[in-house]
Amino acid sequence: MPFQLHSQLAADTHYITAVENCQVLLMNDARFPWLVLVPMENDIRELYELSKSAQEQTYRAMLYTAELLAEHTHADKMNVAALGNQVPQLHIHIIARYTKDAAWPGPVWGVGQAEPYRAADAKTKVQELADLLTP
Amino acid sequence: MPFQLHSQLAADTHYITAVENCQVLLMNDARFPWLVLVPMENDIRELYELSKSAQEQTYRAMLYTAELLAEHTHADKMNVAALGNQVPQLHIHIIARYTKDAAWPGPVWGVGQAEPYRAADAKTKVQELADLLTP
Repeated sequence: MPFQLHSQLAADTHYITAVENCQVLLMNDARFPWLVLVPMENDIRELYELSKSAQEQTYRAMLYTAELLAEHTHADKMNVAALGNQVPQLHIHIIARYTKDAAWPGPVWGVGQAEPYRAADAKTKVQELADLLTP
Repeated sequence: MPFQLHSQLAADTHYITAVENCQVLLMNDARFPWLVLVPMENDIRELYELSKSAQEQTYRAMLYTAELLAEHTHADKMNVAALGNQVPQLHIHIIARYTKDAAWPGPVWGVGQAEPYRAADAKTKVQELADLLTP
């Protein structure tokens, strides 16, 4: 069966590009530079459930996108997390954090309301990140 | 300079064992089965700052401890996260989550007050986890 992105992730994000075995998505919340990586394999909830080669690909994608996003955004800290309490499909958050952002020093999840990008801004941001991240 | 564990991590945890290049610590909060992995290298804040071999060792330690802790605790979900907003030394949280735990479905950080283990319970738990996790 071809890979199917979970409907909640599809609703919450914009597609940017693919890196290694992962879709790279932009979380639709303009408060934070926030990527979501989704290994393109169905019915996986945990990193250790991936095949060994997919584990390695996913890790390379995590390190690659985190470092590039950190440089690009001049972040104070990167947050990298696989939680999946709400959406069971394995996905990894890569978030550029600032000491002055809306959630610092706490994590971003569940803090306030997401501020969706305006359509034109989303398009610009996706293009900018595709240029940055596409291998 | 020999590796030095950040004083805040030392204050918040009990030492369990070492896996790969990481210290494996027990967060002193009996509400959650909660490990913290700390790569034994000074002055590292981000996973991508580690050498390539240390990145790989750390990832193996993450996958290994997450899978064993999940099985051991019959967790509903594992949370794996490198945040570091409060303590700059690179550390990775490996947390066994239950749909009935005190923070579900949110993340555990900043929720309520930690419930420290009683001394005897901490000793028992550390021994149990050392038996489980020591390679």
